[in-house]
Amino acid sequence: VADERLARAAWSRLVEPGDPVAGPVLDHLGVRGLLQLVLSAEPVPEGLVTSPRARALVSSGLERWRVRVATVDPERDVRTTERLGGRLLVPGDAEWPAGLDDLGHAAPACLWVRGSADLARAGARSLALVGARASTPYGDRTAAELAAGVADRGISVVSGGAYGIDAAAHEGALAAGGTTVAVLACGVDRVYPSGNEGLMTRVGEAGAVVTEVAPGSAPTRHRFLQRNRLIAALAGATVVVEAAWRSGALSTASHAAGLLRPVGAVPGPVTSAASAGCHRLLREAAATCITDAAEAAELVEPVGTALPGPRGVPEADHDGLPPHDLRVLDALPVRTARSTLSLAQVAGLPELQVLAALGRLSLLGLAESPGGGTWRRARRAGAAGRGA
Amino acid sequence: VADERLARAAWSRLVEPGDPVAGPVLDHLGVRGLLQLVLSAEPVPEGLVTSPRARALVSSGLERWRVRVATVDPERDVRTTERLGGRLLVPGDAEWPAGLDDLGHAAPACLWVRGSADLARAGARSLALVGARASTPYGDRTAAELAAGVADRGISVVSGGAYGIDAAAHEGALAAGGTTVAVLACGVDRVYPSGNEGLMTRVGEAGAVVTEVAPGSAPTRHRFLQRNRLIAALAGATVVVEAAWRSGALSTASHAAGLLRPVGAVPGPVTSAASAGCHRLLREAAATCITDAAEAAELVEPVGTALPGPRGVPEADHDGLPPHDLRVLDALPVRTARSTLSLAQVAGLPELQVLAALGRLSLLGLAESPGGGTWRRARRAGAAGRGA
Repeated sequence: VADERLARAAWSRLVEPGDPVAGPVLDHLGVRGLLQLVLSAEPVPEGLVTSPRARALVSSGLERWRVRVATVDPERDVRTTERLGGRLLVPGDAEWPAGLDDLGHAAPACLWVRGSADLARAGARSLALVGARASTPYGDRTAAELAAGVADRGISVVSGGAYGIDAAAHEGALAAGGTTVAVLACGVDRVYPSGNEGLMTRVGEAGAVVTEVAPGSAPTRHRFLQRNRLIAALAGATVVVEAAWRSGALSTASHAAGLLRPVGAVPGPVTSAASAGCHRLLREAAATCITDAAEAAELVEPVGTALPGPRGVPEADHDGLPPHDLRVLDALPVRTARSTLSLAQVAGLPELQVLAALGRLSLLGLAESPGGGTWRRARRAGAAGRGA
Repeated sequence: VADERLARAAWSRLVEPGDPVAGPVLDHLGVRGLLQLVLSAEPVPEGLVTSPRARALVSSGLERWRVRVATVDPERDVRTTERLGGRLLVPGDAEWPAGLDDLGHAAPACLWVRGSADLARAGARSLALVGARASTPYGDRTAAELAAGVADRGISVVSGGAYGIDAAAHEGALAAGGTTVAVLACGVDRVYPSGNEGLMTRVGEAGAVVTEVAPGSAPTRHRFLQRNRLIAALAGATVVVEAAWRSGALSTASHAAGLLRPVGAVPGPVTSAASAGCHRLLREAAATCITDAAEAAELVEPVGTALPGPRGVPEADHDGLPPHDLRVLDALPVRTARSTLSLAQVAGLPELQVLAALGRLSLLGLAESPGGGTWRRARRAGAAGRGA
């Protein structure tokens, strides 16, 4: 196969995603050289590797890769994809997402893509929202709200197209008119799970459906696990919304952490098994606690995104008072009134300081004097609760 | 006042908790010397301080502390306390809790205590469980379960005797037959809030009710905030169960962190305002995420307390399989059967490796051969879900 693009397409059928030997050999021989070697039935060439162990590894790789040689037909795979309105992407294409290069030897040889979105652009400001298929209504709602909220900020949402949290994340981004990318474990011409067919069609229209395996490939557990590394590498950060104690979403988080990308986890009730994996990430992996879209967006763009502070919590009337003024305020009766001497004793402060504090408190509308040198709480302060 | 104990009792009426000047001066003059100075109406003695600023601070302290001199009667306060079955504790007493010494200058001069528990012993293995008065049923239940769980491990539960999370924590510890300590912001002879009178009686019977302010003192906001430092110092670690974005419980956590004690926070739904403060601790203060009593207990005793791992999550049939075996398992059909050559192509592995994997999988009861050199998934594996 003389064409580099077709060689990569062919290679994506021969090799399983994440093959630990394939990456280094591909880098060494180039994809055309590697493909020629695999198709040739020659042994490992002299000089490619020196140690017997490395030779044995490459030799076993050749055995594996040659098993599927009879099924290789890259022109057919490209035709199949183009018939669906899709395209083949290889490294060096303008649309190739830069984030994948961080995978090094584990980077995919090519991507099979359907959809209107430019992948390079979508990946530039992107957040992975992933989680359990067996999600709860709480998780679905939270995923959809996070997705819509970050989409509103121009951040694209990457997920895995599965039931549960993945579907809610795609839906949330679509509802906000945003861009969303589904990374599949099967061929771009297949729909898995079948119940998400309509959703995947809409994701393709407004975003992109992406996979590294050749058309027709079935989704296997191995491919699901490897697919997770692509989600983590495509997105600038990964947030797990709900995940059981054991969950594939945790492997996505682990890949993201390995790529030094920020990892967030959404907390939930400690009584919910669907949140146990998120709490595990918070406890064991120092994931950032994510409670709203602003916090999720901050993972992707930590600079220049000011988080709102107290989020609409009204100030209490005593917030920010100096300690002595607080003590005088505490000493003021609500219904009756007290002399400044009595206030001084109750507050444990000299009378002059009490008078100064009363001046400040009355300016703030917190203290008032009914006359006779006595003071009480002003009406609007009277309703405030007590204690801590 | 010649007696050191009575001098400390007297001092606890004159000074407000946490007075920033009182601690250093008390350390310098001793409590009897300080009390003598305050009762004398003399100015700041020559030689006590050198800088004008320090002199001004002490001078203003003397003004404050002298305001309540007329109300001092330590014998009466001790009698009042003893009539309730209580006692006065001072540093150096065998029952004085060692944790308070970490407060340095901010340590209380004495403690007024009611209850059967030995405070030194209760403090030695103790956890503070604190949180919102405006708690939710979720928070109450979680607080009670955490309290009962750590009490079962012989850890005493420290809290503030308030409504909501505090009350649930005390109740949980009592229900488990454990020791619990309520730290009050008012005199040991007062009940605040009044609705917790029955609970405080039971806390006193099985544990202890503690305060640093003299009998008769009212609970003020200032005293609530200062009380929180005692909770943090008495306990080996502090866990916040529920707290609003602004909450006194966060001040307890902040005191604990300042004392280099571990701080935990219980997560909750991101939609619950009662958990916002906990999530804030997880995000901003690097609090440890706490989801059950074992994790809470671990904060107090990190050494030798093995956490259970996956907590009863059943192993999936493919857990721990080497990658090649997983690929062969994925390739095995459930209803029909496949030849080893076909399996090799689907799995992308040489036939010899497929045979070896089939051997291992059949030993594990995951693969079976209906004959003719073909293989399929064994029955019990057939039910397992697919994907990640």
